[in-house]
Amino acid sequence: MSTETLEIVYRVRGPASTLPARLEALLLEQTVELPRSALHAAFVRDHLVGRVLATEQAGTDDFRATLAQPAAATAGDPAQLLNVLFGNSSLQPDVQLEDVRLPPSLVRRLGGLRHGIAGLRQLTGVAGRALTASALKPMGLSVPELAGLCRTLALAGLDVIKDDHGLADHPFCPFGERVRACLAATAEAAQTTGHRALYMPNLIGTPMTVLEQARQARDLGAQAVMVSPMLTGLPLLPDLVRETGLPVLAHPAFGGAQRIAPIALLGKLFPLFGADAVIYPNHGGRFSYSAGVCAGLAQTLRNPDGGTRPALPVPAGGLKTANVPEVLAFYGRDTLLLIGGSLLEAPDAPALLARSRQFVAAVQSFSYPA
Amino acid sequence: MSTETLEIVYRVRGPASTLPARLEALLLEQTVELPRSALHAAFVRDHLVGRVLATEQAGTDDFRATLAQPAAATAGDPAQLLNVLFGNSSLQPDVQLEDVRLPPSLVRRLGGLRHGIAGLRQLTGVAGRALTASALKPMGLSVPELAGLCRTLALAGLDVIKDDHGLADHPFCPFGERVRACLAATAEAAQTTGHRALYMPNLIGTPMTVLEQARQARDLGAQAVMVSPMLTGLPLLPDLVRETGLPVLAHPAFGGAQRIAPIALLGKLFPLFGADAVIYPNHGGRFSYSAGVCAGLAQTLRNPDGGTRPALPVPAGGLKTANVPEVLAFYGRDTLLLIGGSLLEAPDAPALLARSRQFVAAVQSFSYPA
Repeated sequence: MSTETLEIVYRVRGPASTLPARLEALLLEQTVELPRSALHAAFVRDHLVGRVLATEQAGTDDFRATLAQPAAATAGDPAQLLNVLFGNSSLQPDVQLEDVRLPPSLVRRLGGLRHGIAGLRQLTGVAGRALTASALKPMGLSVPELAGLCRTLALAGLDVIKDDHGLADHPFCPFGERVRACLAATAEAAQTTGHRALYMPNLIGTPMTVLEQARQARDLGAQAVMVSPMLTGLPLLPDLVRETGLPVLAHPAFGGAQRIAPIALLGKLFPLFGADAVIYPNHGGRFSYSAGVCAGLAQTLRNPDGGTRPALPVPAGGLKTANVPEVLAFYGRDTLLLIGGSLLEAPDAPALLARSRQFVAAVQSFSYPA
Repeated sequence: MSTETLEIVYRVRGPASTLPARLEALLLEQTVELPRSALHAAFVRDHLVGRVLATEQAGTDDFRATLAQPAAATAGDPAQLLNVLFGNSSLQPDVQLEDVRLPPSLVRRLGGLRHGIAGLRQLTGVAGRALTASALKPMGLSVPELAGLCRTLALAGLDVIKDDHGLADHPFCPFGERVRACLAATAEAAQTTGHRALYMPNLIGTPMTVLEQARQARDLGAQAVMVSPMLTGLPLLPDLVRETGLPVLAHPAFGGAQRIAPIALLGKLFPLFGADAVIYPNHGGRFSYSAGVCAGLAQTLRNPDGGTRPALPVPAGGLKTANVPEVLAFYGRDTLLLIGGSLLEAPDAPALLARSRQFVAAVQSFSYPA
């Protein structure tokens, strides 16, 4: 049996005097879930109990503890991996999950993303610069209205056009009709621009619904899809990748409430489970991530542990065209910039086309620092 | 189009002076995700934008706000319901989801649990008293070892025997072999006791794996299953119910980290999505829920909004036989008491049998207050 281990970093709040007992409890809680005195079988003691590798003080009554847990405990399964990382301990408010490092064999077993930065650059034909994206919204528009928006954004030269993550299979805007119409809109615009925008339909529903939507989207000609893994369940990602093989853009909805560091959840687990590009709230917008977290997320997505492919960072949330130079100076080339609201505030199609062209031009003309 | 609404209660932290603007932003974030100025279509403004129903002060810079959102926004879909409740707003740390009230039409559409208290009482043949349960663990035991534990617990007269939620499809204890052996163990014990314990295998994996495990368990003769919906993804529950029809015991792993009130998540959403019985950390154990939250959870599970079936509360986490009278005085009859560790600490099978019989006797002999 493999003796490989996961390294898991927790932040634990409490006095130093109780830390050893607290870490012993945490260590056992996440695999055998029994006190050591109840572990009667030698195999269990030898192969399923981890150890504390290191502790360091991070602040007053605040410690960083690195635990090694046996990789065998995960059974190579995505849901069981989450369980070993933060199953029961998520119920204990003194603990946060800060980081996770998997052994290469487990990374290989999980598979991870299939396309990443290279695949999305190939699919969009964009080299040497950041990519541009916008969103089709609001929820409540009809299929022709959304397809009209899609056509305008595609005419403006955007690289990626994605559904809003709130576009479900609503009766007023059915999934299949929407995908067909938006793909037709990007094809039509391509006759003018000479270049087809990549449309990504939003998949949402129970797992069986999402997999059916993915197959339907692929059959209609979609070349990539979007999903919110924390809404649908993170372990759906590997099924989605296996079933369709399409590139996956992951949206963070329902993911911020976890007491898990964003870099661990969005930066490591999302790509590990199959996300090729990951949307996250950019600093300074209407969400809460700091510039340091955003830089760390981009860095982590592009430089994965354990030899999986680089994933594309997608900062979003309150971005405006005026900020493109500063955002690109911060993030560099391997970035997909997503601007929704500040384009869609345009009162009509000509205004939307003009605003979107400004966004595209700002990204295309940016000079990256040497 | 339906004009029915969801009522969603949030706690919002911040000064009173900014509250109206904050609630306007929250209201729009969860459906249209655009400022009002960008809502050009009358249909969107009329049918997809909710309203603030009430606000009250809950503490210093701490408010309780009840929003009405259009039920149509959810598309009657479980994942999209979560999105409308707490998708993007989960990324905003000043907001917590405190409660949710769905219109009856949406409850009917989602379906909810199928068996609940009445179904589990019928399946176990237990009337007029609380039910008893224990867990098969630790992870690392072989199939014969777990089946041996299962036989002993069944001989002791336990009503329900469930896998630990960390038992996955490990090579050292494969799922199918385990289910077959544990079902055989309860059948064998029933020849002595005259009454067969209900064995619930743990399902864990990607959605396709879980659904395959559920079908396999049913085909092997299992009459109920356990799953951790927050690990697998909450929207998997309705698929699981639809595919197998088996009663579902839900485990809270990975669910505590959500900035969602336990009563809303475990007490309302779990049963709404199909859980017949819900495990939660009892007060005073190694987890964090207060007595008030535990009482509220039991009350909410047994008295669902909107006419779904009552679900069975399953307090757990550090329970001991010595505490059974006080726990039953607190919870009353419609309760499944789950004791794992303090039984399994027994050094051998005769000691485990004796301890388990004490647990069973304590529950069977308890006199409920009139």
